[in-house]
Amino acid sequence: MTVSPHRYLHRVRFRECDPMGVVYHAHFIDWFEYARTEALREIGLPYKEIQHSGTSLPVVDLAVKYHKSAYYDDLLVVETVPSLSASGLKLTCNYTVRRQEDDQILVTGHVTLCFLQEGRSRPVPAPKAIQEALLPKT
Amino acid sequence: MTVSPHRYLHRVRFRECDPMGVVYHAHFIDWFEYARTEALREIGLPYKEIQHSGTSLPVVDLAVKYHKSAYYDDLLVVETVPSLSASGLKLTCNYTVRRQEDDQILVTGHVTLCFLQEGRSRPVPAPKAIQEALLPKT
Amino acid sequence: MTVSPHRYLHRVRFRECDPMGVVYHAHFIDWFEYARTEALREIGLPYKEIQHSGTSLPVVDLAVKYHKSAYYDDLLVVETVPSLSASGLKLTCNYTVRRQEDDQILVTGHVTLCFLQEGRSRPVPAPKAIQEALLPKT
Amino acid sequence: MTVSPHRYLHRVRFRECDPMGVVYHAHFIDWFEYARTEALREIGLPYKEIQHSGTSLPVVDLAVKYHKSAYYDDLLVVETVPSLSASGLKLTCNYTVRRQEDDQILVTGHVTLCFLQEGRSRPVPAPKAIQEALLPKT
Repeated sequence: MTVSPHRYLHRVRFRECDPMGVVYHAHFIDWFEYARTEALREIGLPYKEIQHSGTSLPVVDLAVKYHKSAYYDDLLVVETVPSLSASGLKLTCNYTVRRQEDDQILVTGHVTLCFLQEGRSRPVPAPKAIQEALLPKT
Repeated sequence: MTVSPHRYLHRVRFRECDPMGVVYHAHFIDWFEYARTEALREIGLPYKEIQHSGTSLPVVDLAVKYHKSAYYDDLLVVETVPSLSASGLKLTCNYTVRRQEDDQILVTGHVTLCFLQEGRSRPVPAPKAIQEALLPKT
Repeated sequence: MTVSPHRYLHRVRFRECDPMGVVYHAHFIDWFEYARTEALREIGLPYKEIQHSGTSLPVVDLAVKYHKSAYYDDLLVVETVPSLSASGLKLTCNYTVRRQEDDQILVTGHVTLCFLQEGRSRPVPAPKAIQEALLPKT
Repeated sequence: MTVSPHRYLHRVRFRECDPMGVVYHAHFIDWFEYARTEALREIGLPYKEIQHSGTSLPVVDLAVKYHKSAYYDDLLVVETVPSLSASGLKLTCNYTVRRQEDDQILVTGHVTLCFLQEGRSRPVPAPKAIQEALLPKT
């Protein structure tokens, strides 16, 4: 099943730029969270509700490639494509960050999360609403 | 009662410097937390233990004056002088940040916190150990 | 002269919340920057252009009062009222942060900045566009 | 050539913990920077000096695996093993983060950087001192 990518806009702030005059690399990972949150909200499952049901989503792994620099005050488009592993146990978000003005790809990466249920030590499958939105229909 | 100031050393990191090549102003407030934590540990009351006893310390107010810039890789000395209000309800930490190399004062400020007990809506007096360390003996 | 306050919306992110489940106090100061940037842009003077003209705006002092907690996923309204000292040397932004949902005031504060010109050691008056927007007309 | 790993100690701060009560995942990447800086200083080439010679070290890519949670006030040992690509164009730091108390491995990862020289658009080989410290002697 194809899910169309979710687009999240982020304005680069002074706080986020380093003495090279460009975005400090770690901040992209913060924005991945913001984009992921809005992508889940769009699916109909705000992360806040997931939490209230006693589920948390720790990050399992991530990887980022930096292609070009982002500059102060750039308006960035963070594209998120979420997908669920066949077992439903892992949620992977693939990201592409572009500068809106010239559509250049600046950063690509992914973040993988699992689902933990309060009081249980092992990961559990994704909540139904996420499965329905992301798993292929038969 | 005079408590001699607690000294906390912080090395300025690249992440903390902005395109002006100096420390971004908000980071000093993070370091105030680090210095406060170590000052409380020295008194014999690690913040982690305070927490475990069901007490939290929300910040009530703060103020900062920026006198001179701090630069990348500077080694800073954050001096903390904690004091307790007569009622024991408020903990104020007064801060002076110096550059170790030339002993120049870069930043001064204070942070005031109160004590909240789980399940109670109003602030409570400071834990005994803090009162004993900080309140004047009669 | 009265300038109507500028409103900046901020969604509280997971990264910004601490183990007490509320916004960590220092983050409000980041958001003050974001709100200030947009307030200046509205006046017609993006901070990026100010910078390009060789002017920087270091923070001179700030103060914050924390009235109520902000929670994860809250939508906050950061209201900025900028004003210029009579001499034109200092820009003060007064802030009020409300939760959009219930209009409660969570945080109030101010940040004062001065204007530095490349190659000059003393503060200079605000750029014309800021003076025109913020100084009382006679 | 084997370089013995550099050890950097980091105390987990309240600011760095999230509502799950554990370290927010992105902060490890900040600590990788701190550890890398101290590892380079030990080799005899403080990053500040590299910068002063007109060289900057942008991050090219990174990857992180999260094995176990780090908690508030944990003392962490960040182990850095730096290595240079055969061409001398890329510096990769491999990281292992352990909790000092129980020696458990919490996080592993790497960050790869290249060397940019002011006024040149393409990456350049690492400064001599880094080559001498990290390239195999023949």
